[in-house]
Amino acid sequence: MNFADRLHAAIQAKGTPALVGLDPRWDQLPAELKTKAATAGGTQFEIQARAFEEFCLRILDVIADRIAVVKPQSAFFEDSGPAGVLALQRVIRAARDKGLLVICDGKRGDIGSTAEAYARAYLAGSDPDSAPFAADALTVNPYLGADTLQPFVDRAVECGGGIYVLVRTSNPGSGEFQNRETQGQRLYQRVGEVVETLNQTQASNAAYGPIGAVVGATYPEELGELRALMPHTPLLIPGYGSQGGTSADTAAGFDVQGLGAVVNSSRGIIFAYRKGQFAEFGEDSWEAAIDAATSAMIADLAAHTTAGQLQSGRQA
Amino acid sequence: MNFADRLHAAIQAKGTPALVGLDPRWDQLPAELKTKAATAGGTQFEIQARAFEEFCLRILDVIADRIAVVKPQSAFFEDSGPAGVLALQRVIRAARDKGLLVICDGKRGDIGSTAEAYARAYLAGSDPDSAPFAADALTVNPYLGADTLQPFVDRAVECGGGIYVLVRTSNPGSGEFQNRETQGQRLYQRVGEVVETLNQTQASNAAYGPIGAVVGATYPEELGELRALMPHTPLLIPGYGSQGGTSADTAAGFDVQGLGAVVNSSRGIIFAYRKGQFAEFGEDSWEAAIDAATSAMIADLAAHTTAGQLQSGRQA
Repeated sequence: MNFADRLHAAIQAKGTPALVGLDPRWDQLPAELKTKAATAGGTQFEIQARAFEEFCLRILDVIADRIAVVKPQSAFFEDSGPAGVLALQRVIRAARDKGLLVICDGKRGDIGSTAEAYARAYLAGSDPDSAPFAADALTVNPYLGADTLQPFVDRAVECGGGIYVLVRTSNPGSGEFQNRETQGQRLYQRVGEVVETLNQTQASNAAYGPIGAVVGATYPEELGELRALMPHTPLLIPGYGSQGGTSADTAAGFDVQGLGAVVNSSRGIIFAYRKGQFAEFGEDSWEAAIDAATSAMIADLAAHTTAGQLQSGRQA
Repeated sequence: MNFADRLHAAIQAKGTPALVGLDPRWDQLPAELKTKAATAGGTQFEIQARAFEEFCLRILDVIADRIAVVKPQSAFFEDSGPAGVLALQRVIRAARDKGLLVICDGKRGDIGSTAEAYARAYLAGSDPDSAPFAADALTVNPYLGADTLQPFVDRAVECGGGIYVLVRTSNPGSGEFQNRETQGQRLYQRVGEVVETLNQTQASNAAYGPIGAVVGATYPEELGELRALMPHTPLLIPGYGSQGGTSADTAAGFDVQGLGAVVNSSRGIIFAYRKGQFAEFGEDSWEAAIDAATSAMIADLAAHTTAGQLQSGRQA
């Protein structure tokens, strides 16, 4: 089954396009986890990696019944060295064992056979045993050119996996290169066209192809424009929550059925105990804070986007 | 000491800007290493990782007396999962222990605190103990915008490390986005300007700053143009050898002293036994083939670029 079909089946089963980003940060981790990890000994990197793994696994326990997709951020695991990378591998595997789809956020990209190596490393698609980091999908950077996307596309098609190409990112300075006027259109528009064309080649009669695009909620007008420009392209929308994007800002990313997009929240969910409306739970109840923040995000998206259609579809 | 000063001291000491890329590929590895690694048992990934590590360490033994800088390609290690990433860490450390500078070719890039995590993970600069993957420098992708380069710049300045920003890559399709005309210049020219400006902010009175640029030998005219546009920016030039670039194609990347650039060869050196003029050594003498290919590259660069000045400077 192609990635978009698997993705949409999972979203419809859970009734929400909410995506939880797994971005473990040592300085924000509940003290309970740090202490426990330190007790087992080892280097500081091994301790961090152990704490990150437990943190992520316990997050999965809280959210797996309601959330379809998670997105571990590779950087935070690499920051603990090989021990952290081993924790990443285990977290991906645990998420898949719970029936979740996993988008590994590595923003990889390279040329030719090097891109093939990254694709082999991360894209397992429908068979978790087919890649060491058994993700369903991987985020990919397009700067090197479409020829460097092709090895990822080929592997994704082969394994039922997907990629999400950076098109219009959520950070304040993302327009510096992405928004430059270039030969009658903006650079991000041209990248978006290239991605959509890849899907039209792959999609046959499917509504969506396996090549997604990252488009930030922090630029809602451009999100709507890209949704129209890329009708066969699934979107990954970062920037909701802590980065300032609202559910209304994400609305233009969805189709009438509530499909075609997933909306990421990382800190706003996993560190909900630290600030904002769920801080009242306190550090000892960090999992309850995650639970409440997850429910609130699902409800918020359902109330202000066509994702509300998913809920009624699910009840039917 | 700033990265460019450390880099140039190392290049002057060895008398060559030749850079050896460590890109281990299982299907091209000498059978001797595969067999030995398999004998020790474990999963296929563990066997690959073990063979990659020995391959790279033995390459280092052959080249360390003549080469100043090596560039391990992260993708080929990640392709073996956490075991491969552990091998990458060990190879980087071994190279540094032999006095080599290490550019980790990870082409990383992300926003804000995520970029900080990558910088912490890879950039050790002058103190190998200050990062888990103890590289002197890291390759970085600019598509997300200059605000996302800043955490790498800050860490590089702090630790005496460097980054190499992708500007004009060596692959056939690199012009697709990089060469687009945008507001009176090409995209790669704009990225180059941004990089040069970062160096002018950092360089004080130094000739070169810590923020390098990747510019392919496969586009020699653009290499010369970028050398002129970026007088404070050290260049990393891929595309020599197997990808078709010649020493003459790299000449425009150097200053009159033979500094300001390093030229990468990966397959042409490390798999010299497999094809080309050093294939006569045969698989059993793969290290002798590497030895001969290394000497030939050094001589070729000295004969056709100002890198010849380094040799005479060294003898003086």
